[in-house]
Amino acid sequence: MYKQKYSSQLLEKAVDEFASLPGIGRKSALRLALHLLKQPVENVNRFGNSFIALRNGVKYCSNCNMITDDNMCSVCSDTHRDKSVICVVESIRDFLSIENTGQYNGLYHVLGGIISPMDGIGPADLSIDKLIERVNNQDVSEVILALSTSMEGETTSFFLYKKLSELNVKVSTIARGVGFGDDLEYTDEFTLGKSIENRHTFKI
Amino acid sequence: MYKQKYSSQLLEKAVDEFASLPGIGRKSALRLALHLLKQPVENVNRFGNSFIALRNGVKYCSNCNMITDDNMCSVCSDTHRDKSVICVVESIRDFLSIENTGQYNGLYHVLGGIISPMDGIGPADLSIDKLIERVNNQDVSEVILALSTSMEGETTSFFLYKKLSELNVKVSTIARGVGFGDDLEYTDEFTLGKSIENRHTFKI
Repeated sequence: MYKQKYSSQLLEKAVDEFASLPGIGRKSALRLALHLLKQPVENVNRFGNSFIALRNGVKYCSNCNMITDDNMCSVCSDTHRDKSVICVVESIRDFLSIENTGQYNGLYHVLGGIISPMDGIGPADLSIDKLIERVNNQDVSEVILALSTSMEGETTSFFLYKKLSELNVKVSTIARGVGFGDDLEYTDEFTLGKSIENRHTFKI
Repeated sequence: MYKQKYSSQLLEKAVDEFASLPGIGRKSALRLALHLLKQPVENVNRFGNSFIALRNGVKYCSNCNMITDDNMCSVCSDTHRDKSVICVVESIRDFLSIENTGQYNGLYHVLGGIISPMDGIGPADLSIDKLIERVNNQDVSEVILALSTSMEGETTSFFLYKKLSELNVKVSTIARGVGFGDDLEYTDEFTLGKSIENRHTFKI
């Protein structure tokens, strides 16, 4: 007889699936599966179906590549947004992080990654041609590069800057400096040095 | 227009569902949902359906209440197990923890909780009558109480002991003491005291 580790193949499969998620080990997976067992049937059906509906139904914005339920995302289709500014981000999560600040009223462009030769990701794998096309055709005055400060992020920013500088568009990058609430004492020298170099007029 | 926080209602629903799990916040939930988006469609379908299949298909062993795919769990239906010993545990997880040690060859009885007046759980809410019935009808010589040492656990153990002492059965409890790898210095006084009181003959 096949020795079932969890006495139930159904439980074992559910634990396997939870454990396939990043950051969830088999002990947590078992805890989550047993948690679901205590929930009403209709809740668990809704739980399982929500992921199936997401994966099968999701679309990407035809303009900026953001995830959406329609052909165009809520930002691109919002008539109140400033369509002359495009903020270039690496991922959907970075898009959401900036959007959640409530400080930005322009459009976005999701690259879908950054140039990383180690991972075999070159410029052709990213949505760079589409960005150039948007700048050319959509009356864009400024492109903000909001990529990470890793070597790959800086490489990608430089690559985009070279491409964009051929066009009639202002290219800017988000400010680097000491974060709010950070101690100067514990800020790395490079960040602190940049924050002094890029100092600006005091205002309240 | 309804302002969608995640630009996609499908994504929002999936994040809501992940965030409904214990120990998973909204940031982790978003990370998990976006992880699923990168997986092949058939994997995500299998992922979602595994929980639906578990919740709708699961059964509980008619003898010991353990989770199973059949009417009787793999332990109760195993002819090589010693059917004269029953180990009483609070939950399915405790059942699995003891089973995983590979040190126990008897049967189990899953109580389904412990007596906890604060949470409104009394003896009638637990599978106690069924345990008494098993002891009476199934030729049981020993019942091992493997409940937690919390006040509720001790209360439940005492309650079960009183009930079982009326029957012709030996009642034992798992050993408490200093765990393997634990420093004596950092072991609490109560545990250390018990480990001295319950010392036994040295053997290799």
